[in-house]
Amino acid sequence: MSLRFAILGAGRIGQVHARAVASTPGATLVAIADPVAAAAETVRAAYGCDIRTIDTIESSADVDAVVICTPTDTHADLIERFCKAGKAVFCEKPVDLSLPRVAACLKVVEATKGTLMVGFNRRFDPDFMAVKAAIDAGRVGDVEMVTITSRDPGAPPYDYITRSGGIFRDMTIHDFDMARWLLGEEVETVMAAASVLTDAKIGELGDFDSVNVILRTASGKQAIITNSRRATYGYDQRIEVLGSKGLAAAQNHGENRITVADGAGFHDAPLLNFFMTRYIAAYANEIAAFIATVNDGKPTPTTGHDGLMALALAEAALKSVAEGRAVKVSEILG
Amino acid sequence: MSLRFAILGAGRIGQVHARAVASTPGATLVAIADPVAAAAETVRAAYGCDIRTIDTIESSADVDAVVICTPTDTHADLIERFCKAGKAVFCEKPVDLSLPRVAACLKVVEATKGTLMVGFNRRFDPDFMAVKAAIDAGRVGDVEMVTITSRDPGAPPYDYITRSGGIFRDMTIHDFDMARWLLGEEVETVMAAASVLTDAKIGELGDFDSVNVILRTASGKQAIITNSRRATYGYDQRIEVLGSKGLAAAQNHGENRITVADGAGFHDAPLLNFFMTRYIAAYANEIAAFIATVNDGKPTPTTGHDGLMALALAEAALKSVAEGRAVKVSEILG
Amino acid sequence: MSLRFAILGAGRIGQVHARAVASTPGATLVAIADPVAAAAETVRAAYGCDIRTIDTIESSADVDAVVICTPTDTHADLIERFCKAGKAVFCEKPVDLSLPRVAACLKVVEATKGTLMVGFNRRFDPDFMAVKAAIDAGRVGDVEMVTITSRDPGAPPYDYITRSGGIFRDMTIHDFDMARWLLGEEVETVMAAASVLTDAKIGELGDFDSVNVILRTASGKQAIITNSRRATYGYDQRIEVLGSKGLAAAQNHGENRITVADGAGFHDAPLLNFFMTRYIAAYANEIAAFIATVNDGKPTPTTGHDGLMALALAEAALKSVAEGRAVKVSEILG
Amino acid sequence: MSLRFAILGAGRIGQVHARAVASTPGATLVAIADPVAAAAETVRAAYGCDIRTIDTIESSADVDAVVICTPTDTHADLIERFCKAGKAVFCEKPVDLSLPRVAACLKVVEATKGTLMVGFNRRFDPDFMAVKAAIDAGRVGDVEMVTITSRDPGAPPYDYITRSGGIFRDMTIHDFDMARWLLGEEVETVMAAASVLTDAKIGELGDFDSVNVILRTASGKQAIITNSRRATYGYDQRIEVLGSKGLAAAQNHGENRITVADGAGFHDAPLLNFFMTRYIAAYANEIAAFIATVNDGKPTPTTGHDGLMALALAEAALKSVAEGRAVKVSEILG
Repeated sequence: MSLRFAILGAGRIGQVHARAVASTPGATLVAIADPVAAAAETVRAAYGCDIRTIDTIESSADVDAVVICTPTDTHADLIERFCKAGKAVFCEKPVDLSLPRVAACLKVVEATKGTLMVGFNRRFDPDFMAVKAAIDAGRVGDVEMVTITSRDPGAPPYDYITRSGGIFRDMTIHDFDMARWLLGEEVETVMAAASVLTDAKIGELGDFDSVNVILRTASGKQAIITNSRRATYGYDQRIEVLGSKGLAAAQNHGENRITVADGAGFHDAPLLNFFMTRYIAAYANEIAAFIATVNDGKPTPTTGHDGLMALALAEAALKSVAEGRAVKVSEILG
Repeated sequence: MSLRFAILGAGRIGQVHARAVASTPGATLVAIADPVAAAAETVRAAYGCDIRTIDTIESSADVDAVVICTPTDTHADLIERFCKAGKAVFCEKPVDLSLPRVAACLKVVEATKGTLMVGFNRRFDPDFMAVKAAIDAGRVGDVEMVTITSRDPGAPPYDYITRSGGIFRDMTIHDFDMARWLLGEEVETVMAAASVLTDAKIGELGDFDSVNVILRTASGKQAIITNSRRATYGYDQRIEVLGSKGLAAAQNHGENRITVADGAGFHDAPLLNFFMTRYIAAYANEIAAFIATVNDGKPTPTTGHDGLMALALAEAALKSVAEGRAVKVSEILG
Repeated sequence: MSLRFAILGAGRIGQVHARAVASTPGATLVAIADPVAAAAETVRAAYGCDIRTIDTIESSADVDAVVICTPTDTHADLIERFCKAGKAVFCEKPVDLSLPRVAACLKVVEATKGTLMVGFNRRFDPDFMAVKAAIDAGRVGDVEMVTITSRDPGAPPYDYITRSGGIFRDMTIHDFDMARWLLGEEVETVMAAASVLTDAKIGELGDFDSVNVILRTASGKQAIITNSRRATYGYDQRIEVLGSKGLAAAQNHGENRITVADGAGFHDAPLLNFFMTRYIAAYANEIAAFIATVNDGKPTPTTGHDGLMALALAEAALKSVAEGRAVKVSEILG
Repeated sequence: MSLRFAILGAGRIGQVHARAVASTPGATLVAIADPVAAAAETVRAAYGCDIRTIDTIESSADVDAVVICTPTDTHADLIERFCKAGKAVFCEKPVDLSLPRVAACLKVVEATKGTLMVGFNRRFDPDFMAVKAAIDAGRVGDVEMVTITSRDPGAPPYDYITRSGGIFRDMTIHDFDMARWLLGEEVETVMAAASVLTDAKIGELGDFDSVNVILRTASGKQAIITNSRRATYGYDQRIEVLGSKGLAAAQNHGENRITVADGAGFHDAPLLNFFMTRYIAAYANEIAAFIATVNDGKPTPTTGHDGLMALALAEAALKSVAEGRAVKVSEILG
């Protein structure tokens, strides 16, 4: 039987998930909820679903699963409500900006024996999956060093920055999750450096736009993450894994695959501009994985614990910048 | 209002078009027809359309347009029937293997003022479109030399080869169309060489598996086409245009974009294996273009005349091989 | 003992060979000859050799080998004189523009049991050697189709064109040799198309600037060659070999290996501008190979016969253009 | 007049410099010194220079300049002796493993008004020079983030490791110099993480084989360096500079530029195996730059101060690893 979905939040990412649900065999989009009527109407018009309130969806017998795409500060509450209501829950990262709130929420999920998947879309990117598959197939041998380059084409609006929890919790969090996934071992210590280089106003808002992080596991494996809020050439998303037998690396995605040559040289297109186009396959795969795990009763591939750990690394990075030292993750998790 | 489609033929390419129609805004898949019940049922199950006979579809008031995906020897008849029935017609290439039959069919289309689009999917590939856009934007200057590399991963079944009209009419025909499109000028002479190198049985069936063609226009522009029915590394599809100002070239598409390095060197994935995956975007764009032209009442981007001309180049190539000389297209068109 | 060289002709290519001889262990540059005193002086100043006349060199006991870099119409005479004088001879291609003259010259070489190597430098390019090694190691299986792209950054001076014997004898001749080398089988038929697209004056001088050639062997292996006298992006030199097991391809050489990315995309440097820089390693390897074969008494890797056959293919191509038909090489060789 | 050289030390790097001197116009190799007679003889035989002792060279009137390629612990003494003797001095990095000793040595150089160039060969690599030129031409805008990947194909012998001063002083020191050069601003703080992952014995010797470093300048520019003593795929040497306008990146150098494709995909050669082949052009350019600056009386492009600063960054990195904190360079320089 088809899994019946409601989507909470019809903003940009809500629309991405609506399309993914609507086009995935084995899933049906039943309802959309959004306080902005026009946003909800856009989704309804495109996919022919109902418009309902979140309260109605909570008690809708014809909804098996929800996708939470509402503002971050509502995530933890909604996860708890819908787990209690017996719905399978897919929630966009992060669960919450506060680590204790995340921990409390995960206890509720556990108590309800609910299904929770946290949206770390990059784990479902076909290229990154191919890198992971190469590791798992032993092609690089023992993983030793991971390099993650992640640069946004431009900074988000200032008011988003204010609410985002800062670059480590908002942007680097994806890279923290990738690092954990690729290292195959928990991170023990975090060192980070942070600067404001692209826009002084970002600094005035208390955030950074340019950061580098070194992660180290107990056995000495390391990962480096380099982030910037500005890359004029597009959305720069690369990973590279060095192991005892070799290297596996995922390249960027250009807008096309043509080269034009002239007297000045060879010219390729800029990169796909942002996550909506770059990760279109990842978002589809992610929802498909959620559907499959709900249908099969298996554990979700990206869990609440993954969300908690990535947030802990973000907090450790922030502390490392503030105190100018290597911070143990155990200091954060307490 | 949404354009209402029926698809004639539920084979491999029929399923590709069914998916394209079903997922294109502004189009609705109303019916599928196929003498093989199971094939029709597959499409019905996936997209929820009716199963009807071709005769029924011909007289269905709720069908505005048809996509002809039946065997080649039925194309011309169906084009004529559905143009007379007032349906817009999209037909897979070729219109027919006989040039006079194509010419006669196009006269019927003209007489009925019907809409006919012939499926040269490659013109709608995003990369090839980007090459064409680069030409049109003047980035390569005056086009002088076109190079088209087109190699199939493997040969089709022997019985398909028997009915295919031979490699020039079946495989090179796509490249002939690309050459005409990229040269921007009609071809005047054709020289071709042909061999059987991959499988002697293909030769026994009267066909070739390895061909090279030189096309030359009246003003001296040239195109070369290199084809093989075997490429162990996947479906090799490249175009390159040299002009007075520079070069534009479209690269191949690999199965992924990761590189694994070890003591033996750097290893990338094979190419996408065949047209179903390589040209997935092209097929979607093609149907979208058909819908747009029907809705706008504009001429179709790939016409019956394009089908006729590509077939004429195929016949000229065959004659060139047989007679060991440069053949003028005017000899073929009479 | 070191092989003692004289170089006949101190022009551009003579200077390339002087440097190669001077920097190759086992070789000594003894003398340079050139009617232009300043040219000879440049070589003398750089490498400390004598300046002598050709006549003097012919009778110099301290010269073991000569490198002929004089104008084409003197090559055959000088080869004969120096073979008779007992010197090992390296001669720049072509031996002569007239096929009968080449044949007569090779008879003299044979009669004197002289050593003659003809300068097909590309066979000594490290990348092309790696392609040949991949073929010889069976990595591509049986060779089926060869593609050679060869474009000069710009046309030579008009007076050079007048004396060059035309594009097929002057430029394509290198590609004919490469095709023979890579096909591993003699060519049976030649088809060619030729145009004047880059400069009408080249046509007025009776030459072409844009040509495509198809070569076919008796067993059906084929090669295509595409040439232009203009490539704004540099000296375009690519080869590609398709076989039953796979493909081997050599890429171009850019001026450097850096990429600069900005809002317009990714930008690489143009190609090395011409043969003096692109084939610097090939020229050095070529002279080293000549020295080694002289010292070892082995046959030279590129022979007078290779020069003759490449010229025969050029004549066949010219005839193909003139007569609009496939020309058998046997028609040319008689 | 030609600059007359003696080379002190005929080991691997001494031979590299001997070849560079011998083949550079404007330089003459007069003498070689090495306590190992066979090593000195190799250089003499190849280039026809004298074999002399260091003492003799010190007082040789026919020697204008020396290249110091002796063991590290002799560098500072020899620099002082030859500066006092009035010879121009090129010294392989490092000047010494002890920062105070370096400082003392540089004072002697200054007092003698001597010419000292320290061998940071990578600044003279054509690709890295092209990256620097792109920066200087404003193509990347203001430099913000530098990424340096530097991996050796394998670790040096254990006894070398014992004398090397450790990975930061021996290997990363090149990257520290590159970072300073590319950032265009002095580093203020250093954070480093270090592990033993490739060979436990390296750890037993008190060294590391896998390190990551973050450098930060006062204005917030950052560089990351990732090092490993093992890369199965060859000598991995990449730099990348992100700026306000874009990115400049230098790619690796493979053993050749051919690709072989088969059913398993596309295969490129491993990287050039180590510095002797990868940086052959850099070593030649470096010596040419030294000759040019001596002849022109200009400051050397890589100075004793550069050597001092790179060593200071190495010491800061070591301290950062030991103390688990960001270390200010001012703590090291005192």
